[in-house]
Amino acid sequence: MTGGYALLVADLIGVAVFAASGASAGVAKRLDLFGVAFVGFAAALGGGILRDLVIGAAPPLAFADWRYAVTAVAASVAVFWLYPALHRVRRTVLALDAAGMGLFTVTGTLKALDAGVPEVGACLVGMLTAIGGGLTRDLLTGEIPAVLQREIYAVVALGGAVLVAVLHRFQLTGLLPLAASAALMTGVRLLALRRRWSAPVAVP
Amino acid sequence: MTGGYALLVADLIGVAVFAASGASAGVAKRLDLFGVAFVGFAAALGGGILRDLVIGAAPPLAFADWRYAVTAVAASVAVFWLYPALHRVRRTVLALDAAGMGLFTVTGTLKALDAGVPEVGACLVGMLTAIGGGLTRDLLTGEIPAVLQREIYAVVALGGAVLVAVLHRFQLTGLLPLAASAALMTGVRLLALRRRWSAPVAVP
Amino acid sequence: MTGGYALLVADLIGVAVFAASGASAGVAKRLDLFGVAFVGFAAALGGGILRDLVIGAAPPLAFADWRYAVTAVAASVAVFWLYPALHRVRRTVLALDAAGMGLFTVTGTLKALDAGVPEVGACLVGMLTAIGGGLTRDLLTGEIPAVLQREIYAVVALGGAVLVAVLHRFQLTGLLPLAASAALMTGVRLLALRRRWSAPVAVP
Repeated sequence: MTGGYALLVADLIGVAVFAASGASAGVAKRLDLFGVAFVGFAAALGGGILRDLVIGAAPPLAFADWRYAVTAVAASVAVFWLYPALHRVRRTVLALDAAGMGLFTVTGTLKALDAGVPEVGACLVGMLTAIGGGLTRDLLTGEIPAVLQREIYAVVALGGAVLVAVLHRFQLTGLLPLAASAALMTGVRLLALRRRWSAPVAVP
Repeated sequence: MTGGYALLVADLIGVAVFAASGASAGVAKRLDLFGVAFVGFAAALGGGILRDLVIGAAPPLAFADWRYAVTAVAASVAVFWLYPALHRVRRTVLALDAAGMGLFTVTGTLKALDAGVPEVGACLVGMLTAIGGGLTRDLLTGEIPAVLQREIYAVVALGGAVLVAVLHRFQLTGLLPLAASAALMTGVRLLALRRRWSAPVAVP
Repeated sequence: MTGGYALLVADLIGVAVFAASGASAGVAKRLDLFGVAFVGFAAALGGGILRDLVIGAAPPLAFADWRYAVTAVAASVAVFWLYPALHRVRRTVLALDAAGMGLFTVTGTLKALDAGVPEVGACLVGMLTAIGGGLTRDLLTGEIPAVLQREIYAVVALGGAVLVAVLHRFQLTGLLPLAASAALMTGVRLLALRRRWSAPVAVP
């Protein structure tokens, strides 16, 4: 019971952070209040909607539980009003975004496995849950998705998804190993940010 | 029976108008005949396809009932040949588009409620039904979606969806209150156009 | 048994070729290794994922059978390393792409018909299976989809889908007529490429 509540709170924090990243992109593109809220909603919940469509869970959680949509929209509207202040807390936002990535990967991979998706597919679904929101945000604001271009982000999610699948295989899906997996992903992501790691680019 | 037939005719008029908006965007981007028909199809039926995927209605109506696809393609091809003449009837097209928005919001919200989506989610689905086609049209033609940038459009749809959910709660889902809801949305949208209302934009 | 195996091999060749087209677009846009693999995956499997979502087959084959994802990623990584050499085999790639289009149209249309989608809708689903991957590739790399602009590609797929639906109506869905349909589409597409056929463009 308490575990489920902790998970919900963690999930909603992830939603709020991803919404803030989407809303910031919307403000930067000079979208109006509705556009900012919509891109925030899409950035926060696009990955989960994609996950639920793929695993056949209709309606997606974003539409089935009002707390998700309300959290995403509230965070977006806050960013709309507080945008200049947001730059000062940029490091905090990046850290929370890394935590959201870790958390969404864990829940996405587990939900796919529980829905009967085989392991390779479930890892892909877990990664898509984490990066789908950012992809949607960039497509809506006319950018080539950042996750495809530079940073070590999706690869961390994919590695974390594989770890979760291995834990699931050995039935180690208690709160502790899962939280440790999310924390590990968050840590690796923050290290990649700090050290400016990047994936190789081909010579065209 | 006659009510169902009236609803189908109204729905197909909405499809034709949304297809015309998509096809016009395609012609302006110098797409070929197929591209114009495809963007017309996507603009007319993208919102409904998204709605049906979200509420778990497979296959979506756009693929299950041939009259929708045929109407969308026929309207698109007509725009392809008659494009210069279209500018002269621009006001009519805008008025019909406002009517289509009202109608799609009503049917989208109701279908979501009937599929068991809770009220907040159903209102979002209703709004997405109305704006999803225009979003798809803009993404396919390389534009940041207009609905996110300037106009009072999606907010009218969202307000209308809330009204429909309230009517549904009180079991007032006869033809008359629903038609009045659609007409109200259409009127507010036309007023917003005429008065050039717009949503606030943040200072980035 | 052997027919099923032949179909799987043919399907995976189609996946590899479409992945190569996506990966090439990714390299040209200077995406990193992950981005190239992701666009390759999306180009190879986006059409099939769309098809499976529309016909209600969850999870989509791309997630249910690991051989599809592995083939797409392996082909993409190969393109990442061998990109300059790829230009020399450009004609081969275009021919294989035409074969993939024919094959994906046949399997997409049949799967939709078998899932109970009516004939007009099933033809649209078959065409979307063939062009969906290329559409996704172009959207992810910030381009207006090529299939909407110039070439005779989707129309060949649509014509082939109609042919498959007619064969299905007369229960002629043995390996021979289906292979002949795919070969016919491939041939028409190659002819259109060689003769530089293109669809008409309207005067805006």
